Amino acid sequence: MMKEPDEFIAKGRLDAITDGVFAFAMTLLVVNLDLPEGFNPTTSGELLAALARLADTFIAYIVTFLMLALFWLERAHTKEEPETASGAYAWTVLLHLFFVTLLPFSMIVAGRYELVPAIWIYGGNLILLALTAIATTLVIERDTGHRLVASGRVEFSLLITSALLSMAIGVFAPDSAMYAYFLNFAGPLVRRWAIATS
Amino acid sequence: MMKEPDEFIAKGRLDAITDGVFAFAMTLLVVNLDLPEGFNPTTSGELLAALARLADTFIAYIVTFLMLALFWLERAHTKEEPETASGAYAWTVLLHLFFVTLLPFSMIVAGRYELVPAIWIYGGNLILLALTAIATTLVIERDTGHRLVASGRVEFSLLITSALLSMAIGVFAPDSAMYAYFLNFAGPLVRRWAIATS
Amino acid sequence: MMKEPDEFIAKGRLDAITDGVFAFAMTLLVVNLDLPEGFNPTTSGELLAALARLADTFIAYIVTFLMLALFWLERAHTKEEPETASGAYAWTVLLHLFFVTLLPFSMIVAGRYELVPAIWIYGGNLILLALTAIATTLVIERDTGHRLVASGRVEFSLLITSALLSMAIGVFAPDSAMYAYFLNFAGPLVRRWAIATS
Amino acid sequence: MMKEPDEFIAKGRLDAITDGVFAFAMTLLVVNLDLPEGFNPTTSGELLAALARLADTFIAYIVTFLMLALFWLERAHTKEEPETASGAYAWTVLLHLFFVTLLPFSMIVAGRYELVPAIWIYGGNLILLALTAIATTLVIERDTGHRLVASGRVEFSLLITSALLSMAIGVFAPDSAMYAYFLNFAGPLVRRWAIATS
Repeated sequence: MMKEPDEFIAKGRLDAITDGVFAFAMTLLVVNLDLPEGFNPTTSGELLAALARLADTFIAYIVTFLMLALFWLERAHTKEEPETASGAYAWTVLLHLFFVTLLPFSMIVAGRYELVPAIWIYGGNLILLALTAIATTLVIERDTGHRLVASGRVEFSLLITSALLSMAIGVFAPDSAMYAYFLNFAGPLVRRWAIATS
Repeated sequence: MMKEPDEFIAKGRLDAITDGVFAFAMTLLVVNLDLPEGFNPTTSGELLAALARLADTFIAYIVTFLMLALFWLERAHTKEEPETASGAYAWTVLLHLFFVTLLPFSMIVAGRYELVPAIWIYGGNLILLALTAIATTLVIERDTGHRLVASGRVEFSLLITSALLSMAIGVFAPDSAMYAYFLNFAGPLVRRWAIATS
Repeated sequence: MMKEPDEFIAKGRLDAITDGVFAFAMTLLVVNLDLPEGFNPTTSGELLAALARLADTFIAYIVTFLMLALFWLERAHTKEEPETASGAYAWTVLLHLFFVTLLPFSMIVAGRYELVPAIWIYGGNLILLALTAIATTLVIERDTGHRLVASGRVEFSLLITSALLSMAIGVFAPDSAMYAYFLNFAGPLVRRWAIATS
Repeated sequence: MMKEPDEFIAKGRLDAITDGVFAFAMTLLVVNLDLPEGFNPTTSGELLAALARLADTFIAYIVTFLMLALFWLERAHTKEEPETASGAYAWTVLLHLFFVTLLPFSMIVAGRYELVPAIWIYGGNLILLALTAIATTLVIERDTGHRLVASGRVEFSLLITSALLSMAIGVFAPDSAMYAYFLNFAGPLVRRWAIATS
């Protein structure tokens, strides 16, 4: 019945690798915001025109940074967690981090190519991030034996909804699909309303 | 009146992601300091000539590292903060980190192209960093209910002044605009003078 | 007989650099998952075909992320360690980190070229990771004077076996060699069985 | 006489940014170990030949990783430091970190071009790392008012000696200059001898 001691790892270490992966993924996004090599503008107009062509990638970068910030905040919120993490807990977090490291790639694809598969890859990546975050919550609730207050259920449902909406918009108007993610900033409002009516 | 518990996150986590993003942004700057691919010098003179052509990017790199160091120090100074961070506090920090991640891009643009829009993008990025840092101070002061001693007001005002000066110089002499930022190293002197005369 | 005080460093610092290197190595892997520059698909079919060509690199990326997660977990598990680290302990960890930083390179080589030396470089890198991890365990056991429960002996033996298997498969069928590493996910099962029968 | 409170920052934060910058710099080194784009070997021989051409960069990478490990260990050793860092202490550490972020660039230059200026840039970078590390020790000794046991004086003197030696060798035989740095691994021996004879 008793788990062997090595099944647990310090939560502080799991937080450290989580913060490291998020911090690096956030910073790495900007590497994709680049002007073509050998580009050598001689007038301000030429430079501004080249920067304007980066607009789609810039929007993808803002959306992706905000999504990472949202996911990181949800992870950092959950404070009722035990000091030691079970193997299942560690693996759901590591699986979540895998999709965090994948997000810069999905962002490049979605920012560069306004085609249905690009929008769907990005949406799919975010849905997998939400599902692994929900899995972490469920594992913590199983490990601690009680329901978390700050479970992120409202936020993750909203995120999955916005991703599905973006993927649907992507079929008809791929160049507008990224805007669906701004819906997530209704999150705090929705949660307050959920708390108020509960 | 009472805020719900999930509105707070541990300040330690916010510090960790702040330190992570600053550390990566600082280290990432050097990636832009690169000799052309396929460049194959056979004499020391050729290599030195190629290195000399990197001088503008090198100055932009030094300035940017020092700016990041200044902003990081201001964030690390503020020690009267509560152990838990409110949602507003976390979001102003994350918004600040967004402009930290953007700075390597602005540095490339300012280092490569000596044109007005390049200087203005860099100056604008630094002003947004200062404004989000000031916003963080204001949120902490609101949350704790008292004015911070180490508020960074003098430093951030000086930084915004130097950025505006650099942007003004940029209109007439874009290749000298980066030097305006060295004005910030008068910061400690100005603060000591401000303390001495207050 | 007594060691001088400077021979020891705080274990917290060693954990911090370990978590940092693992976090960056994990996130850096995705940089290698890139579509060719100048690629400009006009139809969804073209984009999907280009993504399909990344399949080998994607499998190498998944395997490498999981290997890094396994090694990180083994390091984070070992909790019976003293609070201060001896010089020998620090150097075995730093040597282990050297092979962590090398892994993204080995992954590129193994993901791009389906040739025997590529498979052998990747396998060799993993074996060196396992050997330095075992060396760390041995140094800790020498320093503390007792055998660690969570020593990772079963996991590392399995990992070396899977690497040797992959290298053997690589001689005959280089394109299937990476799959041998999924054997490591039998690790928890093998360990449970080892505990049950011991 | 009394310093104002905001002149101090938590040493923990300074350690965190130090560990972050070192971890990222160590991991970034491998990015420079790359096979040419578009290289598509069909036989093992071709791949091995291409890998052999990376030998110089690989040696530069090993030396650089070990140098970073040495500097990091020296920073992590010094444990008699106060819990709060003075402004002077923070700035010497940040200056040290600047030269840490510059090292991957110096490594590329030294690894690619076997010319005197390349060897001198690398040597100069390491000497500046040693001098800023010594400056940190001096500032700590001034702040705490006593001499540190683990001051790194022996190690840093040896490092500067090896860098000067490498720069001298570089004038006559640039392709052997990097090997001078392995002299640093005599460090522990020299220190033990220095302690034994003192």
